Amino acid sequence: MPRTAETASFKFNHTMLRVKDPKVSLAFYQDVLGMDLLSVKEFPDFTLYFLAFNHDGKDLTAEEKEQTRFSREGVLELTHNHGTESDPKFQGYSSGNTDPGRGFGHIAISVDDVEKACERFERLGVAFKKRPSDGKMRNIAFILDPDGYWIEIVPSVLNL
Amino acid sequence: MPRTAETASFKFNHTMLRVKDPKVSLAFYQDVLGMDLLSVKEFPDFTLYFLAFNHDGKDLTAEEKEQTRFSREGVLELTHNHGTESDPKFQGYSSGNTDPGRGFGHIAISVDDVEKACERFERLGVAFKKRPSDGKMRNIAFILDPDGYWIEIVPSVLNL
Repeated sequence: MPRTAETASFKFNHTMLRVKDPKVSLAFYQDVLGMDLLSVKEFPDFTLYFLAFNHDGKDLTAEEKEQTRFSREGVLELTHNHGTESDPKFQGYSSGNTDPGRGFGHIAISVDDVEKACERFERLGVAFKKRPSDGKMRNIAFILDPDGYWIEIVPSVLNL
Repeated sequence: MPRTAETASFKFNHTMLRVKDPKVSLAFYQDVLGMDLLSVKEFPDFTLYFLAFNHDGKDLTAEEKEQTRFSREGVLELTHNHGTESDPKFQGYSSGNTDPGRGFGHIAISVDDVEKACERFERLGVAFKKRPSDGKMRNIAFILDPDGYWIEIVPSVLNL
């Protein structure tokens, strides 16, 4: 049950990450991870891209994508501040996992077969922080997105 | 439809944030935001707390919570590195929204009534980054969690 009536409608709708180059990031999140682009909102200085996995088994219309954008969980918002993609002085964004800047850790994608998913990531040239064979935890991996954010790959059913 | 069969099982399972003091953070995420604690995993140097909103209208058993932890979307993982809560030299974590450390932006909670939700947050003493009445966008707000992470409050149905 929801803990109180006052929070009954609350959902963990989205997580926002800044990205240097949306072309590179969209190729990664759409083609490598398989997310759908729900919506693009362009402002004078920045553009927002909203993505999510489509689990419904049917294609959504543009209007349905727009409506679902704030009403579901598991949405990823990418913010592109215009110009970073071509600014030689731009230093890149912090992954949140080193000082200074430590705080945010990672996002995680659950998959039915971690080994198979990681074999495909290898074929696609994805950078790994931790392969399933590295370290003690053999059933998880960490890949890096184009900005260096950590993405944990976890099995949907985890045996601990 | 899923974009390819290879990614059909993929879900945006969780987002991980480091927190200074789990007692303070759990009170915030459970009592203020209304999330359920799904699972606690204690390791020698750190402890992981997994939370999510329960939309099912029924209480889950401990086993169901554990099973659902990696099989659903909208999970929040809080990492507590032991000792930060009482270390006078601990500087706190970066919200990701200032240099150095800029990268991660925020998480967002969608609610059916932003005004009402924010009135309740005010009563509970929650810190605001942006009240609905501040700035141009009157239909959204930003609150701060105990570590200073930004949490956007957005309406489930957004009229743009």
